[in-house]
Order: sequence, then structure tokens, then C-alpha cells
Amino acid sequence: MLKTAAFAAQSARAPLAPFEIERREPGPTDVLIDILYCGVCHSDIHQARGEWGRSRFPMVPGHEIVGRVAQVGSAVGKFRAGDAVGVGCFVDSCRECAQCRAGEEQYCDQGMTSTYNSTERGSGAPTYGGYSTRITVDQDYVLRMPESIPLDRAAPLLCAGITTYSPLRHYGVKAGDAVAVVGLGGLGHMAVKLAAAMGAKVTVFSTSESKREAALQLGAQAFAATRDPAVFKTLARSFDFVVDTVSGEHDYNAYLNLLKVDGTMVLLGIPEQPAPVAAGALIAHRRRLAGSMIGGIRETQEMLDFCAEHGVASDIELIGIDRVNEAYERMLQGDVRYRFVIDIASLRCAG
Amino acid sequence: MLKTAAFAAQSARAPLAPFEIERREPGPTDVLIDILYCGVCHSDIHQARGEWGRSRFPMVPGHEIVGRVAQVGSAVGKFRAGDAVGVGCFVDSCRECAQCRAGEEQYCDQGMTSTYNSTERGSGAPTYGGYSTRITVDQDYVLRMPESIPLDRAAPLLCAGITTYSPLRHYGVKAGDAVAVVGLGGLGHMAVKLAAAMGAKVTVFSTSESKREAALQLGAQAFAATRDPAVFKTLARSFDFVVDTVSGEHDYNAYLNLLKVDGTMVLLGIPEQPAPVAAGALIAHRRRLAGSMIGGIRETQEMLDFCAEHGVASDIELIGIDRVNEAYERMLQGDVRYRFVIDIASLRCAG
Repeated sequence: MLKTAAFAAQSARAPLAPFEIERREPGPTDVLIDILYCGVCHSDIHQARGEWGRSRFPMVPGHEIVGRVAQVGSAVGKFRAGDAVGVGCFVDSCRECAQCRAGEEQYCDQGMTSTYNSTERGSGAPTYGGYSTRITVDQDYVLRMPESIPLDRAAPLLCAGITTYSPLRHYGVKAGDAVAVVGLGGLGHMAVKLAAAMGAKVTVFSTSESKREAALQLGAQAFAATRDPAVFKTLARSFDFVVDTVSGEHDYNAYLNLLKVDGTMVLLGIPEQPAPVAAGALIAHRRRLAGSMIGGIRETQEMLDFCAEHGVASDIELIGIDRVNEAYERMLQGDVRYRFVIDIASLRCAG
Repeated sequence: MLKTAAFAAQSARAPLAPFEIERREPGPTDVLIDILYCGVCHSDIHQARGEWGRSRFPMVPGHEIVGRVAQVGSAVGKFRAGDAVGVGCFVDSCRECAQCRAGEEQYCDQGMTSTYNSTERGSGAPTYGGYSTRITVDQDYVLRMPESIPLDRAAPLLCAGITTYSPLRHYGVKAGDAVAVVGLGGLGHMAVKLAAAMGAKVTVFSTSESKREAALQLGAQAFAATRDPAVFKTLARSFDFVVDTVSGEHDYNAYLNLLKVDGTMVLLGIPEQPAPVAAGALIAHRRRLAGSMIGGIRETQEMLDFCAEHGVASDIELIGIDRVNEAYERMLQGDVRYRFVIDIASLRCAG
């Protein structure tokens, strides 16, 4: 086993702190990756604090992992030492169900193996995430990172990027479509960039007027401050697609009414309580309320290549690992534009 | 003007009673229809009793109208005197918006002209429905009834039939698909027949075990009595499509969880209060909650021809017009299998 420096939560109430984990020696199809950067996703906080009720401790969070290949197994054909690679939200799946065969491993019938807070399918060993210096992953679950995107700014593409790209593609958003992005955080800012890169006309809906300029800079054509209820009247039946990135409580019906006939609103965030949906808002204009969760390996690679082609990367604040607890607090205040990324060099030096 | 015998509600609190209305003389593109049968839809009750808050009185309900052409205007090419024809939920629309041009007049940007409880686009005169002996309708909003279906049993196809056919087609339900039909009333029984005729494997979900045998006779392969919560566990992730015909309050999430990955649940009924939707139920399996409302003229004709080809008709209880108030009461008790149809001969004799 390979002793590996990490940051872990020992319990739902403990802050993240240094911890040593073991990574498996690369098997024939494995890739050993030296981690360079790891994004900090809001779901890291939920799970590290036990808010989703199925946390395993000690927990090493992190599923926006970018690094370089250190070593490959004997049967690895896809990667070579030195390659820039990425690992997203899962590191394995059953590989046999309809979804896995279709390259939609995130919807695996048996459940995907999450990059952390899960157990390996074979050994049953806990999985540990990217707040660590290296990771061993089967080549089929490793992404090739385009060299044209700075690796630190590419890390959030592996969760925030694919989470927003996948529904835009799945529902066929195309040039000229009117797209509303609700919420301008880690997910929202990627939704704006990606939809704009696809040629859509993007309007950002946010509670705080203060985000107007930032939204336009990210590529939005318009901004709607949702504290003014009039915007929902003015913009009723104006959008082909609504990307809802908000996990706080909010009124789905107000946003459903923004959709044209046959429009779709896709939910990416999970509020604590189910939210009321008025059947009439769906029926009268044949609208759809949908959900979407990350994306499969093939689509994630497609998204990375799309980002390279269109010069899309995440806007980040790079931090040392020692600031990760502070970063969690700031995220809870909405105080980050738009994603913290941990420079894993800081952990390597500390270790 | 053509004096016409009808049954009308004079106010939200009045029972339906004899009333004389005037129909316009057929213009160049109009068809004058002698009405033979008219189905009784649950929405007739809601509107006659002012429960949807936009009722115009006196009101002559009825939008499942079947009859024979009595006379045609000089420019009518589609129909001849004696033809069996039908009129559904609307008799006009703007004809210019994207939806009208696409043959989806029910989603007309300016709003369709409802067969009753609306006003004519030109004259502003009130529209009156099919609880009457004749009606004048523009030929573009008249359906051709297949002669192979008994006309009384065909009447409910014009609302209950198209309301269930349209979403099954729109979402591409095909042979072998697993379809759940929630509720076994006027809409539900048509959903079972139509989905079964498309080759789908249909399971009926109903509160009352007493409907099991009837469901199987209609073409369902299975029945689930929803008073037993275990059925929702046993059948979780089993269905490609859920047709929800219930307008009483019920738990959407329980039914969403019946869907496989990429499954769609379509709402056809409008409960009084918005119902809570758990984002997680949509996100985890990329499910969709959709709405659908009747269908366009072209699709309604397609549905009628499909029914003729597959021998599908509604199961009805034929009544005289004098029993319509009693029929309303029985419908509110769920005491009809599955649609009341008024024999308009009874009104013609009375008049």
C-alpha cells in the first residue's frame, strides 16, 4: 500500500485536519495519479458534516481532482506517466447495467462508487477523495485533461462543469436558445459559461443585484434581480430552458412560468424540503421539470474537450490546504467567486 | 341566427336546466352540425360550478361532441352533409403563432377559443358547448369520426382520449414499455386502452382494490392497490412512463420513484393545491415530471384513426339530458364506468 498525505474529517463535528491514508498499489488496469489540484464542492461540506445522513468517517473529501500520471498498470493503454488527468465524482460502477453500457455510469443500477465516502467494489475498502497527494483509479474512470486549460481552473469542470454541461446537452440547448440560469455560484457560473459557449442567450436570475456585472462578464446577455417580483411577469414564457442551481428553498413555480411551450427546467440542487409544484404550470404549456446528476465518463471527456475548444474554464480562488476549513465557512456565506481550488502542493510540502 | 335547444347553468349554484341559445348561420368555412352525443367531462362540473374562477353564465357545457353534418358553407371542402364529425375542447385559435402553425393549437400563444365558457374571436359572442342540439364550427376545428366506432362511445375520445393519447405519443411510448396509469376514471380507462393498444405493458395504480378486475379487463397486465405502501417499494424503478390522471391530492414523489432512469411522469389532473416535489427523486435518476393538455386538431384526428384501427372506444353510460345533474353527483362519487355520454336525441325530443 502507498502511504498518502491527506486532510480528513474524523467526525461530522470535527474540522478537516491532517491524516494519513493508504492508496492501493496500481493493479494492471490502474493509474496512479499525483494530485496537483482539487476543487471544493458544496457537497464536500454536506458530507463532511454528516448532513446527508450517510457519512463514513474518517472522510477525505474532494471529487474535482486534477493531476499527472505517476505510474500505470501493465494493461493500461490509455495513459502514460506524465499525462495530465482528472478524476470526477466516481471511480467505479458495475459496468454491466444498461446505464453503464450506455456510458451513463452516474445512473448505474447498482449505484456508482463515489470518489469518496463510499467503498471499493472489490475490496470493500473506503474510498478517499482528492484532499490528498495521490490516488489510484482504474483507467476507465480517468479523464484526459486538455493541456490548453490551466489545470487549477480545470479542476471544477469535473463536477460543476459536467453537472451543468450534461443537462444542456441532454435537452439539446443550441445556438439562439433563451436559457435562464438560476443562482450564480459554483454551478451557476459554469452554466453561464457553457450555455454561452453553445451560443445560447443567457439570463442570470439571482437574488442579489450585486451580481449583475459579474453575470454579464461571464457571458450572460441579461440579468434579473429576483427580489423584484415584476421580473417574473415581464419574462413569463420567455425561456426554452431553465437551469436551476439553487439548493436553498425557492419557488419552483415562479421559474416554471418563465418557460415557453415545451420548455424544460432542470433541477441541479436539492433543497432540504420538497417544494410545491403547481400541476397547472406544467400542463398549460406542456412544460417539464427535470433533474440531472453530473455526467458519464464519455460525456465528461466530451465536456473537457468542448471547454478546451471554447476556452472555457472555471473562475477560482486558489488556496493552500490549511485554509480549507475557512473556505467551507466562506462558501456557506456565498463568499467565493466561484470555486475554491486547493493547491495540493501545500499538502505535499506539509507532509 | 339559429335557435337551438340546450341545457345550461344560469349560475354557479344553479342546476343545469333547459335553455335556448342561438348558433350562427354557417359562414363560408363553417360546418353546421346536428349533435347526436356529448360526453360529460369532469371539467364541465368545475366550470358549471364556478370552481375555476372564470366562469361565464349562462353556461352550456360539453366538449366531447359527436354528430352529423347538417349543412356546410360555400368554401368548405373537407366535409359534406351527413358526414360523422366531432368537436373537442376548442373551436378556434389564432392560427398564426408557432404552436398553431405546428398544429398544436391547444397551446396557442393567444389562448385557444374553448368550445364553451369562452368568446368567439371575431364577434365576441359567448361560446356554448355540446349539451345542445346543434353547433356551428369552422371546418378547421372539426374532426372526422371513423364510422367503425359507435358514435356514442367515440364522444369521450375527443377529450379523455386525446388527453391521454397525446402524452403517450409525445414521449414516444412504444411496444414493450412499462407504463403505470394512476387512477382509473374517465382519463385513466382511456390511458389503459390506448397504452395497451400501443403495445405497452400497463399497470394500473388505484386506491380501491375493487378496480383490479376492471383494470385487467381494460387491457392492463397488472394492478397495484395503493393503500398498501409496499407496492411502491416492490415496483420502484420499474416504469418507463407514468400517466397520472388524478386531480385529488396525492404524493407525486411516491410515483416519481416508480420511474426508471430517464423515465417521465406526466400530470393530466390539477389538484387544488400544489404538491411537494423532492428534487432528489428527479435528480438521482434523471427523471422528468411533465404536464400535458389535450392535443391539437391534427393529433386528435390521428388518435381517432388509431382508435378505429385498434378497435378502441370509451366505456360509457348513456343517459338522457334530464339525468345530467344526477350524473354530476355520481361523478363526484366516482360512480361511473367510465364516462357519461348524453344522448342528445333526448334534448331534441324535449325541445
